[in-house]
Amino acid sequence: MAKKYRALAEHYAKAIASGSLGKGERLPSLRDIAVLHRVSISTAVEACRLLERQGYVEAKSRAGYFVIDAMPLVKRAGAAAVSDFDNANERIDPADYVGVHERISVTLARGTRRPMKVDLAGAVCAPELYPGAALRDNMLRLLRARPRVYGTHPQREGVTKLREAIARCSVSRGMHADPETILVTHGCSEALSLALMAVTSPGDVVAIESPTYFGILQIIESLGLKAIEIPTRPDTGISLDALEFAINHMGRIQAVVCMPSVQNPLGCSMPETAKTRMIELCEKHNIALIEDDTYGFFLPNPAYSRPLKAWDKKGNVIYCNSLNKSLSPGLRVGWLIGGKWHKKIEMLMYAVSRHREEMLQLVVADFMAGSAFSRHMKRMNALLKQQRTQLVEAILGHFPAGTEVTCPDAGLLLWVRLPDGKNTDILFDKALAEGIRICPGSIFSNMDKFNDCLRLSCGMPIKGRVESAIRTLGRLAREL
Amino acid sequence: MAKKYRALAEHYAKAIASGSLGKGERLPSLRDIAVLHRVSISTAVEACRLLERQGYVEAKSRAGYFVIDAMPLVKRAGAAAVSDFDNANERIDPADYVGVHERISVTLARGTRRPMKVDLAGAVCAPELYPGAALRDNMLRLLRARPRVYGTHPQREGVTKLREAIARCSVSRGMHADPETILVTHGCSEALSLALMAVTSPGDVVAIESPTYFGILQIIESLGLKAIEIPTRPDTGISLDALEFAINHMGRIQAVVCMPSVQNPLGCSMPETAKTRMIELCEKHNIALIEDDTYGFFLPNPAYSRPLKAWDKKGNVIYCNSLNKSLSPGLRVGWLIGGKWHKKIEMLMYAVSRHREEMLQLVVADFMAGSAFSRHMKRMNALLKQQRTQLVEAILGHFPAGTEVTCPDAGLLLWVRLPDGKNTDILFDKALAEGIRICPGSIFSNMDKFNDCLRLSCGMPIKGRVESAIRTLGRLAREL
Ligand SMILES: Cc1ncc(COP(=O)(O)O)c(C=O)c1O
Ligand SMILES: Cc1ncc(COP(=O)(O)O)c(C=O)c1O
Repeated sequence: MAKKYRALAEHYAKAIASGSLGKGERLPSLRDIAVLHRVSISTAVEACRLLERQGYVEAKSRAGYFVIDAMPLVKRAGAAAVSDFDNANERIDPADYVGVHERISVTLARGTRRPMKVDLAGAVCAPELYPGAALRDNMLRLLRARPRVYGTHPQREGVTKLREAIARCSVSRGMHADPETILVTHGCSEALSLALMAVTSPGDVVAIESPTYFGILQIIESLGLKAIEIPTRPDTGISLDALEFAINHMGRIQAVVCMPSVQNPLGCSMPETAKTRMIELCEKHNIALIEDDTYGFFLPNPAYSRPLKAWDKKGNVIYCNSLNKSLSPGLRVGWLIGGKWHKKIEMLMYAVSRHREEMLQLVVADFMAGSAFSRHMKRMNALLKQQRTQLVEAILGHFPAGTEVTCPDAGLLLWVRLPDGKNTDILFDKALAEGIRICPGSIFSNMDKFNDCLRLSCGMPIKGRVESAIRTLGRLAREL
Repeated sequence: MAKKYRALAEHYAKAIASGSLGKGERLPSLRDIAVLHRVSISTAVEACRLLERQGYVEAKSRAGYFVIDAMPLVKRAGAAAVSDFDNANERIDPADYVGVHERISVTLARGTRRPMKVDLAGAVCAPELYPGAALRDNMLRLLRARPRVYGTHPQREGVTKLREAIARCSVSRGMHADPETILVTHGCSEALSLALMAVTSPGDVVAIESPTYFGILQIIESLGLKAIEIPTRPDTGISLDALEFAINHMGRIQAVVCMPSVQNPLGCSMPETAKTRMIELCEKHNIALIEDDTYGFFLPNPAYSRPLKAWDKKGNVIYCNSLNKSLSPGLRVGWLIGGKWHKKIEMLMYAVSRHREEMLQLVVADFMAGSAFSRHMKRMNALLKQQRTQLVEAILGHFPAGTEVTCPDAGLLLWVRLPDGKNTDILFDKALAEGIRICPGSIFSNMDKFNDCLRLSCGMPIKGRVESAIRTLGRLAREL
């Protein structure tokens, strides 16, 4: 009995300390506490009295017990960051991430442990590059016209309109997409993960570019698949000779995932002839071709470098794209064209996440239905062109002699190789300590081929804090 | 050459016919067409002239070619429904759904082939039961206060506030949740799928209730897992004796998925003693316990029937919940408390779908922070209680003699068993033909145990069209 009321008091003390029961809130009635916790009324009384003595609650005659003070529920970034940081590294245990790619996960987790001063790791642009105001105005207008939207089951009007708008914008990518075959997803991440789920079984081998976007490596591992890395060049992209060799000599390859336009991290695009060869190669060997076109609209003239999907006659290409880089980082809208796997993927998506919220789809559809999207991309691409040049210059100016950097003609990512095999995992650590986040080369591959590389984003104008961060990085790199 | 210009014209004809190039829109310039499709300018000219002769475009001097007519992009529901329906059944091929549970998928696909007059299959309430207006007002207010939100990378303010609000509401479920351990997901579907991904590897065996919610069967199959069905009673829920037997005699069971409160489809809740036994059983055998509490807030006094998670001291329970049934069917907000798998699941979610959109989280957080949510649930539960009674009476009144129906004390789902082994797959077909959608018992199990059962929703008031649909169903059932 003595123990019981203490345990009970502790339960409520916890709820109060964490803020789940807020300042001024009433505890459940004694009777409710008794029923809820299967204790006698007198135990409930004892517990409340203890809470009172401990200064958690006060009794108001008749009305019951009320919380007298509460602490903030979640440690806000900033407030808790300083004390957190000292032991931030110790607390990250690779064992927590078995099955989601321990090495990449640990690096990502460490990078998010505290608020950064300058983030050069995220593939995201400065707010002023996005049409945030126009999107918000769309949302306000749509909400006024649809007072009951949050009470009703989705009407699929959003789905239909967004599909149409996406099909329309796809024309400017030199590609014809039937709206009915477009599935709106929770970003390109979900598109890629559904695509891989649809075409593979656990244990299958998937060919990927090397280096490749780290998210693909995580998805592959979390689905129990094996990756085989195909050399990829900063000028012409994935080596088809190497891919063909792998197909002929390395056992069954079930799927290829690639980024033919503005590859992440290299920024390169495949020549048109390579694209047709790629399509034929995969068709011939019955290998599913998963195309990640996340940065396709970042091409200065997107229609001049068409996606693989534009050549796909047999439905063997699954096309994935997203607006999270190009239109708005927060909306989480992506899509997928599933080719011959369309129905399966649609059903898979139903099973693992259902439909997308409707208003967001309408907001995006409104923006993409007219010419606003292509005007936006023109403006954004012009600004990114400047920022790329500035970042390249800043790197060449501040980094050690012998540093190499890509000069892609599109996108917001640069790939840097340090001289003398300097290790960028160490640079990552040292930069973190200075409040600067970068992507070390090691997370773009399962092999040890890129440990002297790093990926930097030029999404933000290269001036002020960003510029001085590059200077700091250069110094740290020289000191390695 | 002759063939080239025809193929080119066909490409644009397709884009126009499907509406991707809309009425009045300009074709790309001849030069652009030539570059884009790698053809000569004269081929581009030939193609445009052909399109003009075919009546797709008209030339405006100097300005180029413009589309003169366009068809609607997506066949709107309603317009196309009638002609679609005749061959709707033929066009559904189980082979399209291999790996996502062919049988369930085919049934679901058939059920969504055309707009229904009365949907008794969806576990969703009538719009007037949801606080749609309040949610919309929250959204309008939040948008006005945050003009730049759609341009910036998510600030995690939404995440923090929603976690706090969820933790607060969890108290009314008799459970203490640390806000920092709550992961906001894309509905309970994503929560369940992440939970299963985290604790299993392909080939593992997962114990489930029988009958169980069909989505769980789809997720299990799509992850390459095997289900073992544990008998579940409409009064006390999953049989722990059977579960213990299975654990001892059927080889390694990796996880259990269950709905201890207001089970879908049975509506039952486990007794408190069974819950503690379940916790102990799973801890002892090191079996992950995945709890789906989707309908927990539908309990008339939610705190009197606590979730398993409230007893979980070792982090062995993964708690999944969702607001899509209780608060708003369209918002797609769910959450998960991952116990000892928290970090792994957080990283998995990052890999397969990233974060949720922020404004939606803020809207929900605002609603759940105060007492509005519990007032809403009180009102909703009172209405559902009436509707449950009405539906039970309507069923007993119209269905064949010998029909059994559950009378759960919470939720919106009734489980019906027809007499004489009448087959509800046939009933499903006949009802569809009358524009009525039900859930046949066969989709709630991998075994042939429930082919005489069906699940009906009382989310809508039982009057008018709904009432007459029940009458029709009764007639069809009698005619079986
Ligand atoms: C190439 C590539 N694919 C996919 C993604 C994930 O996209 P989303 O944010 O739309 O999920 C990213 C994001 O960094 C990316 O760079
Ligand atoms: C028991 C149960 N779990 C999970 C889900 C899926 O929930 P959500 O719509 O939040 O993804 C449902 C929906 O029908 C359900 O009934």
